[in-house]
Amino acid sequence: MFRTLFHGLLALALLGLAGAARAEDGYDLWLRYRPIEAEWQARYRPVAASIVVAGDSPTMRIASAELKRGLDGLLGGAVAEDQPAGAGAILVGTPEESPMIDALGLPLESMGREGYLIRSIRIGGKPMTVIAANDDVGALYGAFHFLRLIQTRQPIEALDIRSTPKVQLRLLNHWDNLDRSVERGYAGQSIWDWWKLPDFKDPRYTDYARANASIGINGTVLNNVNAKADSLTAPWIGKAAALADIFRPYGIRVYLSARFSAPIEIGGLKTADPLDPQVRAWWKAKADEIYRAIPDFGGFLVKANSEGQPGPQDYKRTHADGANMLAEAVAPHGGVVMWRAFVYSHETPDDRAKQAYNEFKPFDGRFADNVIVQVKNGAIDFQPREPFHPLFGAMPKTPLMMEFQITKEYLGFATHLAYLGTLFEETLAADTRAKGEGSTVAKVIDGSLHGYRLTGMAGVANIGSDRNWSGSHFDQANWYAFGRMAWNPDMKARPIAEEWARMTFSNQQGFVSPAVDMMMGSREIVVDYMTPLGLHHLMASGHHYGPGPWVDDLERADWNPVYYHRADAAGIGFDRTKAGSDAVSQYAPPVARMFGDIDTVPERDLLWFHHVGWDRRMASGRTLWDELVARYGRGVRGVESMQRDWTRLAPFVDAERHREVATFLAIQRHEAKWWRDASIAYFQTISKRPLPAGEAPPEHPLSWYRALNFPFAPGH
Amino acid sequence: MFRTLFHGLLALALLGLAGAARAEDGYDLWLRYRPIEAEWQARYRPVAASIVVAGDSPTMRIASAELKRGLDGLLGGAVAEDQPAGAGAILVGTPEESPMIDALGLPLESMGREGYLIRSIRIGGKPMTVIAANDDVGALYGAFHFLRLIQTRQPIEALDIRSTPKVQLRLLNHWDNLDRSVERGYAGQSIWDWWKLPDFKDPRYTDYARANASIGINGTVLNNVNAKADSLTAPWIGKAAALADIFRPYGIRVYLSARFSAPIEIGGLKTADPLDPQVRAWWKAKADEIYRAIPDFGGFLVKANSEGQPGPQDYKRTHADGANMLAEAVAPHGGVVMWRAFVYSHETPDDRAKQAYNEFKPFDGRFADNVIVQVKNGAIDFQPREPFHPLFGAMPKTPLMMEFQITKEYLGFATHLAYLGTLFEETLAADTRAKGEGSTVAKVIDGSLHGYRLTGMAGVANIGSDRNWSGSHFDQANWYAFGRMAWNPDMKARPIAEEWARMTFSNQQGFVSPAVDMMMGSREIVVDYMTPLGLHHLMASGHHYGPGPWVDDLERADWNPVYYHRADAAGIGFDRTKAGSDAVSQYAPPVARMFGDIDTVPERDLLWFHHVGWDRRMASGRTLWDELVARYGRGVRGVESMQRDWTRLAPFVDAERHREVATFLAIQRHEAKWWRDASIAYFQTISKRPLPAGEAPPEHPLSWYRALNFPFAPGH
Repeated sequence: MFRTLFHGLLALALLGLAGAARAEDGYDLWLRYRPIEAEWQARYRPVAASIVVAGDSPTMRIASAELKRGLDGLLGGAVAEDQPAGAGAILVGTPEESPMIDALGLPLESMGREGYLIRSIRIGGKPMTVIAANDDVGALYGAFHFLRLIQTRQPIEALDIRSTPKVQLRLLNHWDNLDRSVERGYAGQSIWDWWKLPDFKDPRYTDYARANASIGINGTVLNNVNAKADSLTAPWIGKAAALADIFRPYGIRVYLSARFSAPIEIGGLKTADPLDPQVRAWWKAKADEIYRAIPDFGGFLVKANSEGQPGPQDYKRTHADGANMLAEAVAPHGGVVMWRAFVYSHETPDDRAKQAYNEFKPFDGRFADNVIVQVKNGAIDFQPREPFHPLFGAMPKTPLMMEFQITKEYLGFATHLAYLGTLFEETLAADTRAKGEGSTVAKVIDGSLHGYRLTGMAGVANIGSDRNWSGSHFDQANWYAFGRMAWNPDMKARPIAEEWARMTFSNQQGFVSPAVDMMMGSREIVVDYMTPLGLHHLMASGHHYGPGPWVDDLERADWNPVYYHRADAAGIGFDRTKAGSDAVSQYAPPVARMFGDIDTVPERDLLWFHHVGWDRRMASGRTLWDELVARYGRGVRGVESMQRDWTRLAPFVDAERHREVATFLAIQRHEAKWWRDASIAYFQTISKRPLPAGEAPPEHPLSWYRALNFPFAPGH
Repeated sequence: MFRTLFHGLLALALLGLAGAARAEDGYDLWLRYRPIEAEWQARYRPVAASIVVAGDSPTMRIASAELKRGLDGLLGGAVAEDQPAGAGAILVGTPEESPMIDALGLPLESMGREGYLIRSIRIGGKPMTVIAANDDVGALYGAFHFLRLIQTRQPIEALDIRSTPKVQLRLLNHWDNLDRSVERGYAGQSIWDWWKLPDFKDPRYTDYARANASIGINGTVLNNVNAKADSLTAPWIGKAAALADIFRPYGIRVYLSARFSAPIEIGGLKTADPLDPQVRAWWKAKADEIYRAIPDFGGFLVKANSEGQPGPQDYKRTHADGANMLAEAVAPHGGVVMWRAFVYSHETPDDRAKQAYNEFKPFDGRFADNVIVQVKNGAIDFQPREPFHPLFGAMPKTPLMMEFQITKEYLGFATHLAYLGTLFEETLAADTRAKGEGSTVAKVIDGSLHGYRLTGMAGVANIGSDRNWSGSHFDQANWYAFGRMAWNPDMKARPIAEEWARMTFSNQQGFVSPAVDMMMGSREIVVDYMTPLGLHHLMASGHHYGPGPWVDDLERADWNPVYYHRADAAGIGFDRTKAGSDAVSQYAPPVARMFGDIDTVPERDLLWFHHVGWDRRMASGRTLWDELVARYGRGVRGVESMQRDWTRLAPFVDAERHREVATFLAIQRHEAKWWRDASIAYFQTISKRPLPAGEAPPEHPLSWYRALNFPFAPGH
């Protein structure tokens, strides 16, 4: 008997080995439940011995299955489920569904639907852990949090965790087109296989929902803000509804981008004038139709009168008129309208950076209760670095939500390693001074500064059909960091990077610390080799890949890099002081003074706000020209340093992922040098100054860089 | 000690179980080496106890690794490698590298580079198996064959297998664009991540090569026949070279589609006239450049003067002039030119079906030695059924190769189940009568009929970035069948389907027989609900999705379905007899007579060749109109029957794949009914005849079907 059992186990073990040849292809993201170190298993097992989930809703079944899957994988053994709670039980649920949890009298009152408590408790003398919430989705969030503790090797014996989201709408924006291409997508096609929806439900949709729920993302805008009206026709509503059905138990609502002219294009009307009664009726009927298919539909996201999109101004109406009309249509169903502030007028303005403020500030307080205005982090367009958008702090009576770009349109596409946690943190931590010191952007976004009735944060997704979801392994961290900061805008980039690196790669200290250092420095490195010292919008046209600081021939002045850097014989930079475009005056006075004074503006923002002489002395003692060249070089060396770091981390990372990251870093090194060389070659024709000693001349003449073109770049 | 070992094994087993949760997502294709039944393992193990591979070339290392991976997986245990050959050893190699194999004196003389022998032998009284070939790649093919025997549960104790390919060029044609879209692709994006090549080599490229080598495919045309000249620039040659380096040890050569006007577009010349010395010099230099990067580059595939593509006729030169110029450029390097016969003139012809013959027949014997003319299976364009192309048998002095379409442009995209083995077989088995009875298309293609110096078969790939490669699980069978029939055009569709079903799904007899029956009938079902009785080219415009028999407004007459069905008050069908377009006369006289006589033409081809009165009696005794309606209905019922069959097969198939196939069958059922209803609704407006008793009227009025449109259909 024993021998038979032994042989059976042997066969099983060998079978397991064959099965375990599964590639580390990144599909599992940070939910990578591989068996952990034996000593940690030994420590955790008694505290995570069984799972007792109260309730049988789809959400609670998911919470239960996730804990089972996670603990089975991590602890390398089958964790019991649904036992009568004994020592080491993990109790999961709501007081309503679980008498045991109810009896604990936990302080859940102020925690809303999504908050959760995780506590180490004793019941009948037996140590247990309770994951409790007011609603099932809170319990699911708590379950993911509990797993994260184990994934990151935190103690779980004496827990007293309380977490509620500070932001209500935590949304991904998919710029996914109906033909499955993705605008500014560098991770393959859209994960929405529209053609086969609603019939075929790719199992990947479920994994998408799991990943989002694990970081608290609670909504997703399925289609591109440059929207087709077709997305609002019955067949496409059906496809959206199929996705909504899958996402619902994960606490994720579906939203749609709405094309403002849809009443004409699919409604057969002659106008889309928001004050036209027929138009209003059409949108109300359309909203009713959508809500019949998707009862918890989140609402609309709208890009109007921006970059050629239709909008209320086509009818001499205002943004408020347009937004409020849509808001009226979804209000009876509890929906919201997210109205984007990324607008700039058809006429070439004196300074594009001022346009959004100029167009929206006058309408503060004029938007309906269920409208929230979505503002990009900076005033231009997702550059490697931008000062915070002047609208933050300037709209006390209108809820503003943040729009970050997770996909790296301007930061090297998928192959450049650039951890965006630092970019998000920098923006959120910026002090608007709107109501005195400490009036951070984070406090605008979480609503606390102005008492917003609605709060939100959106991230333009970097998710696609690539096996690793994001186009590169490290780009997964940007999705992760966005979710974590949307939950809590006060979270810092470093601990998030550390969590992610531990869950995604390794908990070995030899790995974690250097990997996190590398991530933390990575975005500044990109700034250095692309747009140092406050330069911006220097990329090539259309696809936005590679340097194009010389571009001066695009239709609109403010589409050209030369419009932004304004380099001339005297110096370089965009004068946004009172002497120039006076964009600084859109900020609160102390901020305006700080940015507007060349002696107080941070060097990192210098050329954003000032036109500066080539020979001006910088903090380093170098002239501006020399400093500029030095920054470009520092960027290239920064990538080389990341390459060395990553090489040293090889012992901690599986071969497949290590090789891929190393290959991408080599591409990044090559392209960083291209940026440096092309930029210096160009700017030197204007500065007419020699390179500082020790700085290598560009590898090719400027004409060589100008001749490069990339007709098949992705995402365009 | 024993207890420790036991616990270790227990842990391993549990770990294995956790790891084994790997989804059955179809990625493994037919190389799905899951552990087989214990009794079969017991039977095979003694005969496959160890692997002894001679030689250390990349190809032999691959053969060794594949056998190891396959046997470890299938037999559920670690198979020994590189042991001194004992009982149960599998000896793999060439006489040149292996003295043991050399000593066996195997009859390898006439087997070429790619042929192989597999024999059960005894050495020193010990039973062994030898897999021998003249070249490493032959040994690799033999290794895959040996694994296939186990995968399909064949006896392996007394093997005496001898296999050589009957066709030299066994090629996939990828219609993959440089922006990663795929023309007529229904499986996601191109698997070529051009943007990240040549630096990043997706591990998937290796799995692609493995899969192809396993069925003997030895070449791949990387880019679309509707080619961009960019594909011949240095950066793209570098990308192709990176792929060639990966594919080389698998016996796979890389080819490129060449745009005829490239000398103008990227060469800066004023002309692409094939007789212009500068043009000839440009192509020679271009070929030299390619061969420097890819020493075993296969050659060019060209679509010229077809559907708007440039070609020699733009300069009043002939197809032979064009092909021979390119042939001259690649000849010194051993390359070939595959010149497509899919042409039709700019002027609307009397019958498009006659064009290729008319254009090419006069040039028989006028092509250079390293040119092969690539001919689609039928004279129109990959319809669900076409009679064999009249060029087959008509070009005795010019090598012709077959072009099949594996991707289902006209057979329901990825969601309709249509096993194309029967289509391939039907074409290959067709008798051209060119040199008397038995002059089958297969014998044209394998070169035996006319003594061709070059032979080839191309399949337009259905491969994309979808996890399951082909867009649906059953579409993998079409890739598989193509490869098997390219190796041996005499192979029959049924045994290939059986091999595939066993390897891909299950060897249980309760599964195999019904699954193979389902596959074997599937394409005829599609013919029934789309284009019964010889009808053809009835699809909607552009994307070719769904029915559009009414379309009559496209620019060229011969792009319109009405051009092909010619339905009128009297009857329906294209008169290609002498009284009509006389396309029949392009066939050998006995075939021409058979097709040309309404009493001898097979009913399946009736309306391809004849305009037939609505009331003509068919073999069934029904009138043509009633028969047409009956066939449409039979198609719909055929899908319903497949649905029932598949439901019954649930016990044999993992849940994930079963669900996906079932979902796709439901889509197919829905769309089959759409085809039937729309077609009947339309044709009834012309036939003016009632539906036969018991036939349900179309669900919607004709106007409803005509109003449908699909602007976001894939592959277009």
